[in-house]
Amino acid sequence: MNVLIVYAHPEPESLNGSLKNFSVKRLEKAGHVVQVSDLYAMKWKPTLDADDFPDSNPGARFDPALDSKRAFENGTQPGDIASEQEKLLWADAVILQFPLWWFSVPAILKGWVERVYAYGFGYGVGEHSDVRWGDRYGEGTMAGKRAMLVVTAGGWESHYGPRGVNGPIDDILFPIQHGILYYPGFSVLPPFVIYRAGKTDEARYAKICDALGRRLDDLWNTAPIPFRPQNAGAYAIPELTLRPDIAPGQSGFAAHVA
Amino acid sequence: MNVLIVYAHPEPESLNGSLKNFSVKRLEKAGHVVQVSDLYAMKWKPTLDADDFPDSNPGARFDPALDSKRAFENGTQPGDIASEQEKLLWADAVILQFPLWWFSVPAILKGWVERVYAYGFGYGVGEHSDVRWGDRYGEGTMAGKRAMLVVTAGGWESHYGPRGVNGPIDDILFPIQHGILYYPGFSVLPPFVIYRAGKTDEARYAKICDALGRRLDDLWNTAPIPFRPQNAGAYAIPELTLRPDIAPGQSGFAAHVA
Repeated sequence: MNVLIVYAHPEPESLNGSLKNFSVKRLEKAGHVVQVSDLYAMKWKPTLDADDFPDSNPGARFDPALDSKRAFENGTQPGDIASEQEKLLWADAVILQFPLWWFSVPAILKGWVERVYAYGFGYGVGEHSDVRWGDRYGEGTMAGKRAMLVVTAGGWESHYGPRGVNGPIDDILFPIQHGILYYPGFSVLPPFVIYRAGKTDEARYAKICDALGRRLDDLWNTAPIPFRPQNAGAYAIPELTLRPDIAPGQSGFAAHVA
Repeated sequence: MNVLIVYAHPEPESLNGSLKNFSVKRLEKAGHVVQVSDLYAMKWKPTLDADDFPDSNPGARFDPALDSKRAFENGTQPGDIASEQEKLLWADAVILQFPLWWFSVPAILKGWVERVYAYGFGYGVGEHSDVRWGDRYGEGTMAGKRAMLVVTAGGWESHYGPRGVNGPIDDILFPIQHGILYYPGFSVLPPFVIYRAGKTDEARYAKICDALGRRLDDLWNTAPIPFRPQNAGAYAIPELTLRPDIAPGQSGFAAHVA
């Protein structure tokens, strides 16, 4: 199978860098083909702006969605964006690996999403009608592919527990797992999270590699998070609210997991 | 009073650009002094990396936290970072204004947080002991200052409702409002959110300005979101989990609001 690792850490000699190298080896040893988008090493341009669309009419108002749509349709996208889209289409599974900075992905990875997820590719896919609202949340360009987060965090596991001060890790990751991965169609596997990343000695590193290695071995048979598909009946359209008989009385992120 | 608007939209002629200009005028008319950090216009560097710390030992491993700490303590930070920190210290209120892209802030604004919130300034402040875990979540450098989000979203309000497919807007914004603003001590006001931003005609624009104008007039007397302070007794230390008598049986983001 083909695996794309999108990796965002500025220091190759970091825990993240070591784990990325470990993952590549482990996957290749199992016979998979691996590509790595090492965003810092690539000096990835993080900002979505008019410079990405030199074919716009001079003086025209820049519209992030419409300019992206035109460039995607006409094949006039910048090469770095088109190349990442190719990798995504090539991949059977995608791993996003990053340190949790301020409760989300590093800016450089956020900018990868904003630029690579063009209109017509990452969103704006499929028809809007009275029975469906675009190919998204379970359908879309990435349907049939798997995705998984590998995340390091400085805080303790309890700080990210159900009643921990930072909020539960599943809720912190929901805008990424549901909003960025499930949205264009990925099946999203449970995340692999390393807490107290700054406190990793050799013994603990070996244990982390063991556990991560098992997750990589099981990439093709781990059950995805059962997010509810948008167009399969659970949601009223166009309101896109859960129908009364689905998760009755529940609200919040967890109601979108079956 | 002094108000800092940190603004992240690539197109000056956008709805966001117009609302930013409206806010500046409204606040100045009320006698406040306003500064705007227009991140796209400033060509803000979004990536936290070793280039920010040229005083590091050559060949040394880059450590985002420790290098930031050293540069902040020694006054060797890049000028753009120090200048934004000065603006934050100057401000009585801070407004972050941005389009919601992929359920979070645009990359350029995320990178503003990552670089400006230095160790010793945005985090790593105060002592850790058996009764307190740093000056954070209600205490810290920004204590006594107010903050508010002004956000545009493409989707419908119902899509962001309690049972909407995107998840409730309060939960989507929690990592920003609680994790980025309350963390270093801001009192966080309820957000001002504009839905279906792409569908704004003149009549609707006038209504939005009316509502936003009232929120700006009330900046000093709107009740903040009652997030629970970390070190005032609600949380066990060092586990940082809510004590059993606080919001008994509740979990998730909402449990951290009194």
